[in-house]
Amino acid sequence: MRLSKTFIKTLRDAPKDETARNGALLVRAGYIYKEMAGIYDYLPLGLRVIENIKTIIREEMNRIGCEEVLLSGLQNPEPWEKTGRFSESEVDIWFKTKLASGGDLGLAPTHEEPITNMLKNYVSSYKDLPLYIYQFQTKFRNELRAKSGILRGREFLMKDLYSFHTSEEDLDVFYGKVEEAYRKIFDRLGIGEDTFETFASGGIFSKYSHEFQTLLPVGEDTIYYNKDKSIVLNEEVYNDEVLADLGVTGEKFEKATSAEVGNIFKLKFKYSEPLGLKFVDENNTQKPVYMGCYGIGVSRLMGTIAEKFSDEKGLIWPESVAPFKYYLIGIGEAGTKLAEEIYDKRDDVLFDDRDVRPGEKFGDADLIGIPYRIVISDKTLEEEAIEITNRANGETKLVKIEEIEKSL
Amino acid sequence: MRLSKTFIKTLRDAPKDETARNGALLVRAGYIYKEMAGIYDYLPLGLRVIENIKTIIREEMNRIGCEEVLLSGLQNPEPWEKTGRFSESEVDIWFKTKLASGGDLGLAPTHEEPITNMLKNYVSSYKDLPLYIYQFQTKFRNELRAKSGILRGREFLMKDLYSFHTSEEDLDVFYGKVEEAYRKIFDRLGIGEDTFETFASGGIFSKYSHEFQTLLPVGEDTIYYNKDKSIVLNEEVYNDEVLADLGVTGEKFEKATSAEVGNIFKLKFKYSEPLGLKFVDENNTQKPVYMGCYGIGVSRLMGTIAEKFSDEKGLIWPESVAPFKYYLIGIGEAGTKLAEEIYDKRDDVLFDDRDVRPGEKFGDADLIGIPYRIVISDKTLEEEAIEITNRANGETKLVKIEEIEKSL
Repeated sequence: MRLSKTFIKTLRDAPKDETARNGALLVRAGYIYKEMAGIYDYLPLGLRVIENIKTIIREEMNRIGCEEVLLSGLQNPEPWEKTGRFSESEVDIWFKTKLASGGDLGLAPTHEEPITNMLKNYVSSYKDLPLYIYQFQTKFRNELRAKSGILRGREFLMKDLYSFHTSEEDLDVFYGKVEEAYRKIFDRLGIGEDTFETFASGGIFSKYSHEFQTLLPVGEDTIYYNKDKSIVLNEEVYNDEVLADLGVTGEKFEKATSAEVGNIFKLKFKYSEPLGLKFVDENNTQKPVYMGCYGIGVSRLMGTIAEKFSDEKGLIWPESVAPFKYYLIGIGEAGTKLAEEIYDKRDDVLFDDRDVRPGEKFGDADLIGIPYRIVISDKTLEEEAIEITNRANGETKLVKIEEIEKSL
Repeated sequence: MRLSKTFIKTLRDAPKDETARNGALLVRAGYIYKEMAGIYDYLPLGLRVIENIKTIIREEMNRIGCEEVLLSGLQNPEPWEKTGRFSESEVDIWFKTKLASGGDLGLAPTHEEPITNMLKNYVSSYKDLPLYIYQFQTKFRNELRAKSGILRGREFLMKDLYSFHTSEEDLDVFYGKVEEAYRKIFDRLGIGEDTFETFASGGIFSKYSHEFQTLLPVGEDTIYYNKDKSIVLNEEVYNDEVLADLGVTGEKFEKATSAEVGNIFKLKFKYSEPLGLKFVDENNTQKPVYMGCYGIGVSRLMGTIAEKFSDEKGLIWPESVAPFKYYLIGIGEAGTKLAEEIYDKRDDVLFDDRDVRPGEKFGDADLIGIPYRIVISDKTLEEEAIEITNRANGETKLVKIEEIEKSL
């Protein structure tokens, strides 16, 4: 991408009402545009980050045998009324609207009800199970406050996976596979070391659910962890009873602030029972389907990564999610000529070909936070080389021109 | 994909209220699921078709220099109030909702207002123009009736492109490039021969707009064309005055039914003026930006293609959009073994590995409409071959086993 051809510009100031660091940085660096609190547009660089995160998640979902679908945002109240969740006293973040032809509609804040309801058309026997179905879908949640940038959106992108089983054992086995897939995803996104599977409150059918919490000073959650971080609890279940239940009494727990980037939940019959999703087993007995659900906040992950990997100069994207690998600057006639040649051969380069002074390009390179900055100038050409600087640690090296293809 | 592992099943019957052929066929063949009139889910096969259509459109948009973004669905009324279009007397297909913290929101039926408004942050000089910005985005339209399957959705996927220029001449040149890109897109989708650029009514600033209409017996539009189809008009502008304007008097026009798969529009100042999107020209004079907009209905295209390419047995996808290239059936032990080997090596194969009788597999192969059916049985293996049948014309050929890699 040529910076001279794109409409995005880095901005000196973030919107006044953008108090979250991730939101301010991403707006200033030209990744997102703020429409309203909790409602953002994704600009070309931002959309590339989102797509990179999606690709990593999709690969790990497909690896464990999941199938991708895309369910509607507009929701028929009917299945939600069967579980009691269309009522605002049960779910207080609905956006609701009305059909011109009459009747209420909701905007999906999540999709347990429609997917359970839909599967009644496809599941009848134990032979039809297990099933693992996921989507990347825009969710709508009518949050009273939305002040955390893209960490908490009123409209946001989520990966939601639902699994369907004939037995609790089968659900348990798949739940373990998702735990492993999630760890791989967070590792690949560069936040694995700071992301912990955390005990959180369960529901009617499960004692606990699990969250994946990433250490983040501005996160909205509070977690407690033991010395080696092998046991981590959400504040909501940090009490003597739960600690005893987990067999850890006396050990000292540290408190930390974090962002919930994923959660997994054994739903069992919570939705299949009221919605009537049943199967006939090998003995011809009809039973409700066991279910699990597994979410990852895609846009929230982008905000978390932006917030975690940044310094006073700007963003520092991990290579796996960066919109481009190289930020290319040519200085002077010969430098610009070689830069053009390199750009023409590659598609992982953001080429700063704007007619502005080098200082501005260096500043924007730091703000936009592409992993490697390439500078070609008379000075580097004297050494028959180009200069590559690592955005994360500032290390610079010269690469000889004849070694460019091998080294980039 | 293994049919035994996916949740989708072909259904004997479509939903009773699904009167449109495209909707009925796509539901029966397991591509989509109907939530409500005009509201559909995309199942694994359907999502692959949608992604294939998107890829073709994206390639042609990028080829003419367009940049991809993703704008929000939730709409701040403010910019829409400036153009008068938040009012239901102006736009009668709004879905509206309310913020929990107070205030109205709309669900975007289109995006002229937000993109024009957003660009005020990025455009100030002639040096910032031209710009061509597009997205694939879910639109919401509160249609009173939605009985045409995915030809008219209340929630549907659209590609919308907006262009921004310093002069009418520049807008005209780009408009021509989009016309050409659209023709390429419809050619690649297999509907080029039956799709015509059609004169339609303009607006305040343009005498005509142009639609791309695909001949389709169940389409919702009526067009008139001359003998060699070089001049095609939407019914709304088919009158003596327009014919005279186009220099065609006396010639006989035929009437036909069609579906509008795209439209392009010279907006000029229609949105830039009320929203205040201006630029400073080379003489330091401030002027409003010239605009154009260019839509393609992605899900409507899928419905149009499904409707056009089908017979009494089911769907007949053009290769460019088909979810897979091959539908693979192995019969008997040796046939199944070779089928497994072929499947393992390729990712363009839908493998019918279900434990059902061959007749059911043949029926589903026809209904699902993958371009080529491969059958491997004792009979074909006697000839040391596999049998390949073209879904469109029924032609069958034997391919020797040693030539499989070369021929598939």
